[in-house]
Amino acid sequence: MAVQAVESAITRPVFGPAVALSCRECGERVPLGPVFACAVCFGPLEVAYDFDLPAGDPEALRRRIEAGPPNIWRYAPLLPVPADVADSPNLNPGFTKLVRADNLARELGVTGGLYVKDDSGNPTHSFKDRVVAIAVEAARAFGFTTLSCSSTGNLAGAVGAAAARAGFRSCVFIPHDLEAGKVVMAAVYGGDLVGIEGTYDDVNRFCSELIGDPLGEGWGFVNVNLRPYYGEGSKTLAYEICEQLGWRIPDQIVVPVASGSQLTKIDKGLKELIALGLVEDRPYRIFGAQAAGCSPVSQAFKGGHDVVRPVKPDTIAKSLAIGNPADGPYVLDIARRTGGAVEDVTDAEVVDAIRLLARTEGIFAETAGGVTVGVTRKLVEHGVLDPSLTTVVLNTGDGLKTLDAVAAGPTAVIRPSLDAFRAAGL
Amino acid sequence: MAVQAVESAITRPVFGPAVALSCRECGERVPLGPVFACAVCFGPLEVAYDFDLPAGDPEALRRRIEAGPPNIWRYAPLLPVPADVADSPNLNPGFTKLVRADNLARELGVTGGLYVKDDSGNPTHSFKDRVVAIAVEAARAFGFTTLSCSSTGNLAGAVGAAAARAGFRSCVFIPHDLEAGKVVMAAVYGGDLVGIEGTYDDVNRFCSELIGDPLGEGWGFVNVNLRPYYGEGSKTLAYEICEQLGWRIPDQIVVPVASGSQLTKIDKGLKELIALGLVEDRPYRIFGAQAAGCSPVSQAFKGGHDVVRPVKPDTIAKSLAIGNPADGPYVLDIARRTGGAVEDVTDAEVVDAIRLLARTEGIFAETAGGVTVGVTRKLVEHGVLDPSLTTVVLNTGDGLKTLDAVAAGPTAVIRPSLDAFRAAGL
Repeated sequence: MAVQAVESAITRPVFGPAVALSCRECGERVPLGPVFACAVCFGPLEVAYDFDLPAGDPEALRRRIEAGPPNIWRYAPLLPVPADVADSPNLNPGFTKLVRADNLARELGVTGGLYVKDDSGNPTHSFKDRVVAIAVEAARAFGFTTLSCSSTGNLAGAVGAAAARAGFRSCVFIPHDLEAGKVVMAAVYGGDLVGIEGTYDDVNRFCSELIGDPLGEGWGFVNVNLRPYYGEGSKTLAYEICEQLGWRIPDQIVVPVASGSQLTKIDKGLKELIALGLVEDRPYRIFGAQAAGCSPVSQAFKGGHDVVRPVKPDTIAKSLAIGNPADGPYVLDIARRTGGAVEDVTDAEVVDAIRLLARTEGIFAETAGGVTVGVTRKLVEHGVLDPSLTTVVLNTGDGLKTLDAVAAGPTAVIRPSLDAFRAAGL
Repeated sequence: MAVQAVESAITRPVFGPAVALSCRECGERVPLGPVFACAVCFGPLEVAYDFDLPAGDPEALRRRIEAGPPNIWRYAPLLPVPADVADSPNLNPGFTKLVRADNLARELGVTGGLYVKDDSGNPTHSFKDRVVAIAVEAARAFGFTTLSCSSTGNLAGAVGAAAARAGFRSCVFIPHDLEAGKVVMAAVYGGDLVGIEGTYDDVNRFCSELIGDPLGEGWGFVNVNLRPYYGEGSKTLAYEICEQLGWRIPDQIVVPVASGSQLTKIDKGLKELIALGLVEDRPYRIFGAQAAGCSPVSQAFKGGHDVVRPVKPDTIAKSLAIGNPADGPYVLDIARRTGGAVEDVTDAEVVDAIRLLARTEGIFAETAGGVTVGVTRKLVEHGVLDPSLTTVVLNTGDGLKTLDAVAAGPTAVIRPSLDAFRAAGL
C-alpha cells in the first residue's frame, strides 16, 4: 500500500492510546503501521502505549470501564482503537462468562476456587473474535480492503464473519483437512475460502509469500501484517478475568498454547492492570497447555531448553496444531518467570477432559478446551499446580466445531412405547 | 411424587412473585405444582403473579434490573424463581446481543431500524437455555431428581447441560434422525439420550405416557409437567429486547413458531412491562414464522381459520418441526389482535436467508433463524411488514447445529504456491 495512506492513518486518535510499535527483542521503536518485524533485528513488533488516564485514580478508571458496553470495547482506553470504536460495525466480542466450576473443582481436588473462562460464548464461538475485532480496526485505519489470514479453523470463521459485518472482502486460507464445522462456518459468510494442501505451517508460509507479492496488495492479514494489533485482543482475556473476579488477579491461569501469542498477551494485560493500579500487584503463575501430538513448547520447557524445536503436528487438537510457534520462546520465559509450567496431554486425555468438563459444568468445549482442562488435571496430579489457590482455566473454543473428537451418541434407540423404554433398562 | 413434597414447595419465596397457576382458557386457579392442564377444562395452565414491586416507581425497578447480573436473573423479580436464584448452580443464560442489522436492513429495504436478537450466544447456543433455566428451579422446588424432555434437538442439549451443572440426572428423548451436531451435543453431557423411531409428535406423546407411568416417578419433564414454569423463560426475550432498545417496545417482532409457546410468552412479557410501567404503552405487532414444510399455524392464519389442523412435518427446519403445535390457536389470536401475521417460507428460502444473514451481519443462524429472516423478507416484499417501523427478528439457534442445511465449502483447494493461487483466479 502507499506510504501516504499509512502516514495519514497514524495520527493518534485512530489508535487511541497506542503511540508506536516497539520491538520485543531490541526495543527499537517505529511508527504505527502494517508491519510486524523489526527492521533492525527481525524481532516481533508489539504495540506501545501512552495511557492518557486519570493519574493516580484507578477507581475512576474502574468505574469508567464498568459503565462501558458488555464487550471488549469497555477496555477501549487500553487498546489500540479509537475511543468511538463501538460505533463502527464489528462483532462486539468479549465479556464472556467466567464460570465458577465447583463440580469440576471437586473432581480435580482443587479447593482454592476454580473458574472456567468460557470463550465459546463469543460471536463465532472462539476467542479469535477478540483478536480479529482489533485487527479489523487497524485494517480500517490502514485503508485495507481485503481481510485475510492463515488459520487452523477458528480464525477463518472469525475473519469471515467480521469482514462480512464490517464491509471488507475476505479471503482466508486453511489446511484442506479441517473439521467440517470449521470449514462450513468459514465459508458461510460469503468470502473466499482457500484450502491449502499442507499443514498450518505451510499455510502460514504461503501467506507470508503472498504479502510480498502484488497479488496481496491492499490485503490485511490479521495474523501477519496486522499481527501487532491483532495480538492485543488477547489482553482483554486478562482484563475480563480480573474484572470478573472483582478486580483481582487469580493465582494461577492455564492457557492453551498454539503460536503462544495468547499467553504472552495475557501476561502483558496483567502487567498493565498492575501498572495502572487497577489490581493489586501480587504474584501469579501462568501455565501453558499443549497437545502431546504438537508440544514443541512443552518439550522445551520440560527439557530445560530455551530453543523451541519445530515439530510436525499430529493431534485432534487442530486449533493448537502449530508446529513452529512464533512466540514459543516468550511462553517459556513467562512460565519460568512466574513459577508456572508448560505441560501436554495425549489425545485420549483431551477427549476425557472434554467429557469431564461437559458432565460437571455443562460446558461443551472444543479440543483446545480439552487440552487446558486435561493439562490442569495433570498438573494437579503431579503437584505442579497448587490446588489451594484460585485457578482460572481457559476454554477458547466450542465443541460444536470438533464434533468428531467425541464419539457421543444416543444411549438407546427405541420405538415410542413404554414397553420398549422398559426393555432398554435405563 | 408425594403430595407432601409438592405442598412444602409451594411457599411463596421459592417461586418468587408467582402465586398460583391459572388456566388460560377458563381462569381456574390452582396452587403452584407440577401440573400443566386445567382439571376443569383441560386448558393449559400458566403462572400467575403478584408482583411485589415499588408501587408507581418504574424507574426504581429499571435501576434494580440494570444493576443485576448480565443474564436472565436480572429479571428475577418478574419470574417464578426465588430472589437468590443466581446463587444456585445453573447455566445463567440470556442477555444475548441485540444486533443492529444495518447491512441486512439495506438488503431488505427496511428503513425504520432492523435488529437481530441473537440467541445463539446462549450457553448451549439456543434460546432453550432460557426456558430450561426456569424449569430447573421448579424441578428443584418440587424435589425431582431426573430432568427430562421431548426435543427436536436444541432442548435436549439445553437440558443435558443444565442437568449436569445443577446436579440432576437427565434422560432426554429425541427423534432418531436429528442433525449430528444436535445429537452429539445432547449426549456429551453424560446423561441418557434416547432416540425415538418417529416424529417429534411421537416423542411428545411417548413422554406424556411416561409421566403417567411409575417409570416416570420423580421425573421433571421440562416441557410437560414443568411446562408452566418453563414457558416463562421466553418472557425474558421480550424483557431484554425492550431493555436493550432503551426500555422501548419495538413496533414489530418476528418470532419463529414451533409449539407457539415462545410467541405467546413474548406477548405476555410485553404486556407485563406495560402493566408495570417499565415501557410506554404503545401498539406492537407480532409476526409468526414457520417453514412451509411444517406450517399448520401459517396455513390457518392465511385461511382465516381458528382451528390449527395438524400436519406431518417435512422441512430442514427440524427445530420448528412440530406438526401439532399446542399453542397454535393462541398464536393466531395474538397475530390477529396485534395486527401481525403468520407466514411461511420454503426450505430453499430458508437456506437463502441463512446465507443472507451470514454475509450481511456475520451471524451464522440455524435453520430456525433462516425461517425468521426469510419470513421477514417475504413479509416486507408483500407489504405486510412495514419497513418504516422498528423491527426485531429473532435468531433462536446456531448454524453449527444445522451444518448440512448450507452446503458451504472452500472456493478452491490449491497447493501452497503463488502460481497455484494465481491460477485459482480469486
